[in-house]
Amino acid sequence: MDVEIITIGDELLMGQTIDTNSVYLAQVLAPLGLNISRKTAIRDGKHDIITALDESLARVSLVLITGGLGPTNDDITKSVLQSYFGCGTRIDHDVLTHLQRIFAFRGTELFEINKMQAELPDCSKTLFNSQGTAPGMWFEKNGRYVAAMPGVPGEVKAITEESLLPLLAPLFQLPPALNRTLTTALIPESLIAKKLSAFEKRIPGCGLAYLPSHNVVKLRLTRQDPLLSGEVFERFWQDLLQELGDWVFSPTDSSMSEWLLDTARKRHMTIATAESCTGGYIGNQIVQIAGASDVYKGSVIAYDNQVKIDVLKVEKTLIEMHGAVSAEVAHQMVEGVCALLNAKMGIATTGIAGPSGGSEEKPNGTIYIATKIDDAVVVKHYVLRGNRHDFMVRALNTAMKQLQEMA
Amino acid sequence: MDVEIITIGDELLMGQTIDTNSVYLAQVLAPLGLNISRKTAIRDGKHDIITALDESLARVSLVLITGGLGPTNDDITKSVLQSYFGCGTRIDHDVLTHLQRIFAFRGTELFEINKMQAELPDCSKTLFNSQGTAPGMWFEKNGRYVAAMPGVPGEVKAITEESLLPLLAPLFQLPPALNRTLTTALIPESLIAKKLSAFEKRIPGCGLAYLPSHNVVKLRLTRQDPLLSGEVFERFWQDLLQELGDWVFSPTDSSMSEWLLDTARKRHMTIATAESCTGGYIGNQIVQIAGASDVYKGSVIAYDNQVKIDVLKVEKTLIEMHGAVSAEVAHQMVEGVCALLNAKMGIATTGIAGPSGGSEEKPNGTIYIATKIDDAVVVKHYVLRGNRHDFMVRALNTAMKQLQEMA
Repeated sequence: MDVEIITIGDELLMGQTIDTNSVYLAQVLAPLGLNISRKTAIRDGKHDIITALDESLARVSLVLITGGLGPTNDDITKSVLQSYFGCGTRIDHDVLTHLQRIFAFRGTELFEINKMQAELPDCSKTLFNSQGTAPGMWFEKNGRYVAAMPGVPGEVKAITEESLLPLLAPLFQLPPALNRTLTTALIPESLIAKKLSAFEKRIPGCGLAYLPSHNVVKLRLTRQDPLLSGEVFERFWQDLLQELGDWVFSPTDSSMSEWLLDTARKRHMTIATAESCTGGYIGNQIVQIAGASDVYKGSVIAYDNQVKIDVLKVEKTLIEMHGAVSAEVAHQMVEGVCALLNAKMGIATTGIAGPSGGSEEKPNGTIYIATKIDDAVVVKHYVLRGNRHDFMVRALNTAMKQLQEMA
Repeated sequence: MDVEIITIGDELLMGQTIDTNSVYLAQVLAPLGLNISRKTAIRDGKHDIITALDESLARVSLVLITGGLGPTNDDITKSVLQSYFGCGTRIDHDVLTHLQRIFAFRGTELFEINKMQAELPDCSKTLFNSQGTAPGMWFEKNGRYVAAMPGVPGEVKAITEESLLPLLAPLFQLPPALNRTLTTALIPESLIAKKLSAFEKRIPGCGLAYLPSHNVVKLRLTRQDPLLSGEVFERFWQDLLQELGDWVFSPTDSSMSEWLLDTARKRHMTIATAESCTGGYIGNQIVQIAGASDVYKGSVIAYDNQVKIDVLKVEKTLIEMHGAVSAEVAHQMVEGVCALLNAKMGIATTGIAGPSGGSEEKPNGTIYIATKIDDAVVVKHYVLRGNRHDFMVRALNTAMKQLQEMA
């Protein structure tokens, strides 16, 4: 079943906020067979909201709205929805109690502007917001449904899990969507497409999507014909894995960091990182995964050369001879950090993220990555494309691929 | 002038990719007076593309499309646009030469599938893509304009700067949009709204938007009446700054990391960070700013207690007495890292990011932040809300506010 999302807020259109809510919603709804068919971002304007709702409700029977429900004057969604559905107001006493608790906990006064957040359209059900002050709302009219939630990501998540999904589950009993995703690393998209050109012709009822990002290409096989059996879908999936062979980095959609943590756990090893040009990006991506602390020891961000020498025990003469951006220094960095933090698996990076600092011999994007497992160390040289952030993401992906080839 | 963006790609709707292109486009177009009035994300489907284009071109005279221009079979945008504008094909020889160069540099063969990327609709101008293989396209029909670009962020940026903006600048000579943004930190949105309720009533022709995120609230004053003079706008802005007084963290929209780097440069100091629960997030946000290396020395991510003891010289007995999550340990961490990396400004964090690890005494979200400037050290205790990532962002913002109060 198709679902549309409408996000409300000038800030989303002015480039001051990145919309992650619709990404989250797509991820939790897809396994229920609810597929996002369109996302529309509009301004905080009455006319914009009404027009977008009219258009979406003409196409689909479930619309999810995020944003525009804060306590301040620029948030008008609640009153627009109330008049759209032609209803009056009510006070939700559970919400009021919740507001009083939050403000008592914060030690600040509950102002009238906040109390008004407990005033809701009387034709709506409350979608309780345990993580914030603005409750969500659920409307139904002529067999069409609208859920409205505030725009704060943690609140969208809480409302969805605690209030929205329990409402949706019994309402839309649909055959689940079927799709699987695998991950390849450092193989160009066009090379994969060439290899799979025959395969793509022999999967009737299925579609294959290429999702390239920073030297990683994910491939998603999706059932498009609902009559196709799960067994046939599974056979196509196995075919795909076979076709790609060792180009498959991981037969899942999980992140590179999750792969690293799993690998370390399986081998009963701990991990340390030493980062120069990537400035903590790799370590932080690892730590973003809950439970990382059982195998991840820590990192030294040796942004300054003196830190490489003092903390990681890189020889000063080595830096003078080969430069800080060199295979030799990367090698000593990974050895140094594994010794310092007492870890068996290690990753070290030294390079030039740009946009300045490059030379003809070592252009922007140059990086040496050293990886270590037990006593084995591999150091490789790459030139990675993109801006500063792209460079760091590619460095992470490249380091993981390099580690996998050793493992 | 209003502009609409259409993003094409199943991956954007399935939650596998976050759309950052439209954020970038909004940021570069706003100063030119081109404001994004609506963003629509649609599937890789012919009908979806045509419908969305029809709708957008009925509302505005400039539409920007991103996505769906890769070399693979699931990308159909080019052929749909060709038939939408009713034209044939041409070979762009500059693009072909560019493709040959890229593939020679990569050392891989230029396949037919890639060569086809030089084949473009003959009614379109080429928007040259220096960063990738898929060129952008520019269409004009009855005084309406459509620019189509691939979906890779670095390529969108390059095409926009090198090809799109030079086309737009002479075409749309409009009075520039006028807006300014300031940043507050750790002041609740509702408290700010209360303080500004009178101010908001005495700024005719202007609007004030609240942009809250992770304990930071940005306030954006926008000119809504094009006849309002720049001088009056500037007076409103000064009024706003005055009203807020020392609640203003920064009178700009720049990031917390930029503020830190600027402050360190002004004081001729260098910065070091020691992170436990935030696992490199703070350091990496600093390093994401180009040029950070002149004042940022590096960091120790002391995720494991042994690293706190061995590297940062935190006393073992202190950890045993007070726990690793304590004011005492945060204090020694900041002293330790500043001594180790020879820095005058320091930030250290120790806490519990969750979702597990919390206790009644120290719940998930507990954090001790130590900040140091010269010989002064401040350690404070906070309980921060949200998931793992939210926790890290709030920790960064809180640490900067704490540093500012010392400075």
